[in-house]
Amino acid sequence: MGNSKKSASENMPKIVVLRWGHRPRRDARLTAHVALAARALGASGFILSDIEDKKIKETVEKVKRNWGNGFFFEMGVSWKEAIKRWKTKGGIVIHLTAYGENIQTSDVLQRIKKPGKDILIIVGSQKVPKEFFSKAFSDFNVAIGNQPHSECASLAVFLDRLFEGEELKKSFENAKVRIIPQKRGKKIVKNL
Amino acid sequence: MGNSKKSASENMPKIVVLRWGHRPRRDARLTAHVALAARALGASGFILSDIEDKKIKETVEKVKRNWGNGFFFEMGVSWKEAIKRWKTKGGIVIHLTAYGENIQTSDVLQRIKKPGKDILIIVGSQKVPKEFFSKAFSDFNVAIGNQPHSECASLAVFLDRLFEGEELKKSFENAKVRIIPQKRGKKIVKNL
Repeated sequence: MGNSKKSASENMPKIVVLRWGHRPRRDARLTAHVALAARALGASGFILSDIEDKKIKETVEKVKRNWGNGFFFEMGVSWKEAIKRWKTKGGIVIHLTAYGENIQTSDVLQRIKKPGKDILIIVGSQKVPKEFFSKAFSDFNVAIGNQPHSECASLAVFLDRLFEGEELKKSFENAKVRIIPQKRGKKIVKNL
Repeated sequence: MGNSKKSASENMPKIVVLRWGHRPRRDARLTAHVALAARALGASGFILSDIEDKKIKETVEKVKRNWGNGFFFEMGVSWKEAIKRWKTKGGIVIHLTAYGENIQTSDVLQRIKKPGKDILIIVGSQKVPKEFFSKAFSDFNVAIGNQPHSECASLAVFLDRLFEGEELKKSFENAKVRIIPQKRGKKIVKNL
């Protein structure tokens, strides 16, 4: 109320993705994909919680060096600590889970967007701690459909809907390489 | 023109996902996620091309047994053969690639949907054969943003946009387990 001056792009809240439950060998590629999807689809940063994995960090840093910056990578912080910090700063926490409110059949996305707050998105793996569902940690439990599938796929759809597609127009600061979209073949521009 | 009687859901074309370049050890979880995302987000089937991997097949079949059928899994067919078969039956082929036409900034999705044909979606890995971009194999090269990220994320956004979100309402035949969406906690119904 009284906030109608806000334009979607001007006052876009900050979105950060927290990846819980990463197992370095088993999830190597999957976690890298989640991090790169977070970056490409408009998030401001990525937290690998409760563990350090230099390979994932290197993958993300290499993409940043070549394709542009404006995305932070953090690792090793405990998930509880990260959520506490986030909430202290006034942000809200979304837990993506197949058990949550269906993003298509409920009004959960509207309720998430309404206050215009910064959003921490938690993506877990198969079995997450029960606490993720509790009021103390998550403000919303959101399902990208109520079927088991993929945290990477869920995150992508959530971000695409949250930003209403605008994230795919974004250009990145200090990019050395940039793709010029083509109907056929590959075209890139390099700034060396 | 003259086709305005068609309703989106009645005449929904069949969508199948072809995964190319799977390496059993390295891509184990990622390919499983791509297959499960395909199923959960409305595709009719999944083809693991050029290789057999029983573990992926088991993962998908187990999900089908518990969460419902209506999705086929095929493996080992060569990608060229699969595409040839598809085209012979009148279907079109979409290659998802960061180099393609941007789904947000171009009208590529409209052009894809207009003829209402069945769609084979090819998702590759890092380096795909050059032929994927050629007229002989792909009808459209589509980018979910022109940044490097994830075939799993790209597929998810593509399917969500193609089906306009309707895929997330879908119920599956013969499901033994079904989630009842909740704001907090987990609720399932079992038909044993």
